[in-house]
Amino acid sequence: MSIDIEKEIKEIPHYPKAMMYGDADGWIRLASNENPYPPSKAVLEAVLDNLFGISRYPGGEYELKESIALKFGIKTEQVVLGDGSDEIIEMILKALRHKGKKGVIVTEPSFPFYGIASKVYGYNLKKVPLKNMKTDLKGIKDAIDSDTRIIFLNNPLNPTGTIFKENEFLDFIKEIPDHILVAVDEAYGEFVEDRDFPQSLKFIEAYPVLILKTFSKAYALAGLRIGYCIGEGSLISYLERTRQPFSINSIALVAARAALSDNDFLKNVLNNNKKEKAFFYREFDKLSLEYVPTEANFILVKIGHDAEYITKRLFEERILVRWMGAYGMPDYIRVTMGKSEENRIFIEALKKIIR
Amino acid sequence: MSIDIEKEIKEIPHYPKAMMYGDADGWIRLASNENPYPPSKAVLEAVLDNLFGISRYPGGEYELKESIALKFGIKTEQVVLGDGSDEIIEMILKALRHKGKKGVIVTEPSFPFYGIASKVYGYNLKKVPLKNMKTDLKGIKDAIDSDTRIIFLNNPLNPTGTIFKENEFLDFIKEIPDHILVAVDEAYGEFVEDRDFPQSLKFIEAYPVLILKTFSKAYALAGLRIGYCIGEGSLISYLERTRQPFSINSIALVAARAALSDNDFLKNVLNNNKKEKAFFYREFDKLSLEYVPTEANFILVKIGHDAEYITKRLFEERILVRWMGAYGMPDYIRVTMGKSEENRIFIEALKKIIR
Repeated sequence: MSIDIEKEIKEIPHYPKAMMYGDADGWIRLASNENPYPPSKAVLEAVLDNLFGISRYPGGEYELKESIALKFGIKTEQVVLGDGSDEIIEMILKALRHKGKKGVIVTEPSFPFYGIASKVYGYNLKKVPLKNMKTDLKGIKDAIDSDTRIIFLNNPLNPTGTIFKENEFLDFIKEIPDHILVAVDEAYGEFVEDRDFPQSLKFIEAYPVLILKTFSKAYALAGLRIGYCIGEGSLISYLERTRQPFSINSIALVAARAALSDNDFLKNVLNNNKKEKAFFYREFDKLSLEYVPTEANFILVKIGHDAEYITKRLFEERILVRWMGAYGMPDYIRVTMGKSEENRIFIEALKKIIR
Repeated sequence: MSIDIEKEIKEIPHYPKAMMYGDADGWIRLASNENPYPPSKAVLEAVLDNLFGISRYPGGEYELKESIALKFGIKTEQVVLGDGSDEIIEMILKALRHKGKKGVIVTEPSFPFYGIASKVYGYNLKKVPLKNMKTDLKGIKDAIDSDTRIIFLNNPLNPTGTIFKENEFLDFIKEIPDHILVAVDEAYGEFVEDRDFPQSLKFIEAYPVLILKTFSKAYALAGLRIGYCIGEGSLISYLERTRQPFSINSIALVAARAALSDNDFLKNVLNNNKKEKAFFYREFDKLSLEYVPTEANFILVKIGHDAEYITKRLFEERILVRWMGAYGMPDYIRVTMGKSEENRIFIEALKKIIR
């Protein structure tokens, strides 16, 4: 091969995907923070109604933006859609390309794609470690230098499930120079029970803040790939210019609209999550396993030095959880709240293996 | 807004989408080079079988790559998938980021996203005009300078439907310095009847050539967004590293695999295209309208100085065609071969308006 590829590109690691088993029966999938329920009837009906149209390029983006704008009481021009939040992260990195400033600050560990994508786009990455399992907002502020262009925050934070609160965010954002973009990824925001979770939309006019949201988690559409971003109108318009014209498939567009309109489905998902969270707390307490109280649909549990081994043993039982070695936490596993019966099978298997 | 956005990003134009009407009844859509037929029964069945899985992240990329590799007699590692060819174009621009060389050469006019995306990624764009409605391979070769990094070719060429032949391509590629990547987009390749169309896979080992293909056209899956790229293994692996981990939705993955296996559907599509092409030639001849003989599923017709007006009049009849003003050809329209009855309605309307 005579094409000379830059060292930085060659060194990009492969994304740490969970081992995938499609819809293979008999597997309990608690590794990818997916919604364990099939999508709602409203979603399935909308998809079926539009199946014959898949030979045409996707239409209907404007209508979905309208539905989102209506839900949040904002303008349609303040919403941009993406092929999952991943594309939104890329749009931000593309639109904010800058000759002078190339610094990106992320929490370590957090959702890995912020860092991977930043490197793909040639940014300089600074990683600020967790503090007490939480995003270290003060540490991030202190990490800012003359090169800083973008800060990625994740609230709740993947993989710990912890949040920063509204007053903490306000104290932080007030002190961030306003030429720095703060992207707040709230992929798991719907699951939060803490009433002090930031009402983040309040901040998008006064500060250069973008809010990332997704249909992949609470709305159960991970397979269709659709996320969105809310922010100040002109900033959103620059993101829009840098995106692929038809990045979101036609099925995702109609499914997302149906999902937004189905409040009962969402309510059930959140209730179940709450219930299963209580179950996990109880069971981990009984097993004297340390865990991080979570505001998301997953829970970080300290298993100890044999966490990788136990993950493998669970795998042999056809139970997928995520060993946190790739996140720099080799003593931990991250477990998604599955369906009630799945969680019980997991706990039984864990007990058996630990004994 | 205090975030300083680079001038080059601010100046990116909005993508020239056709006016979209989803599946609104009664519209004849000949503007976007879509397949006018709904997808095959095999595709619909595969989609239905996998609908319940859409709450899970997409699996099955490897299996689709295997099917593609088998079809072309290549290795799975020589295939990368994308969220439409658009994502593949972006992967190329990302993976080939280079401190020294930033030149991209495209044909003008051709598929607009090559140029738009190149600018988003900060490349320097050189446009080589058509020669006799064809890609000017000699002009492109002459346009190469010390900055040149990538050449995008489109074969057949959108919007003219013309091709360059295998011997022409061989003469060209032999003279291209081998540190320059040549990306050949064959989105409409399945429709070609000319037997001298390049067997482009022959070139991927000896030269730095990537072949882009899509399920959006002949395979009737434009709405699902899935394309692929074939090339030398290490080059493909660099593209793979720069992509979003889950850019292709789960429905597209199973639909594409079903589409590949359905030879009868493809045969029918190609036969119909051939028949409708003959119909258009005949009718345009009768109307003494000049057109470009096409190897694709669309045809470029010279209407004259009132081409824009006639496009609007057709729109009033609920017939969508593409006026070529945005492509720098204001005397032309581009018409996709629709279904037989749609093409007849279009021709009747055109006759009426011209009179």
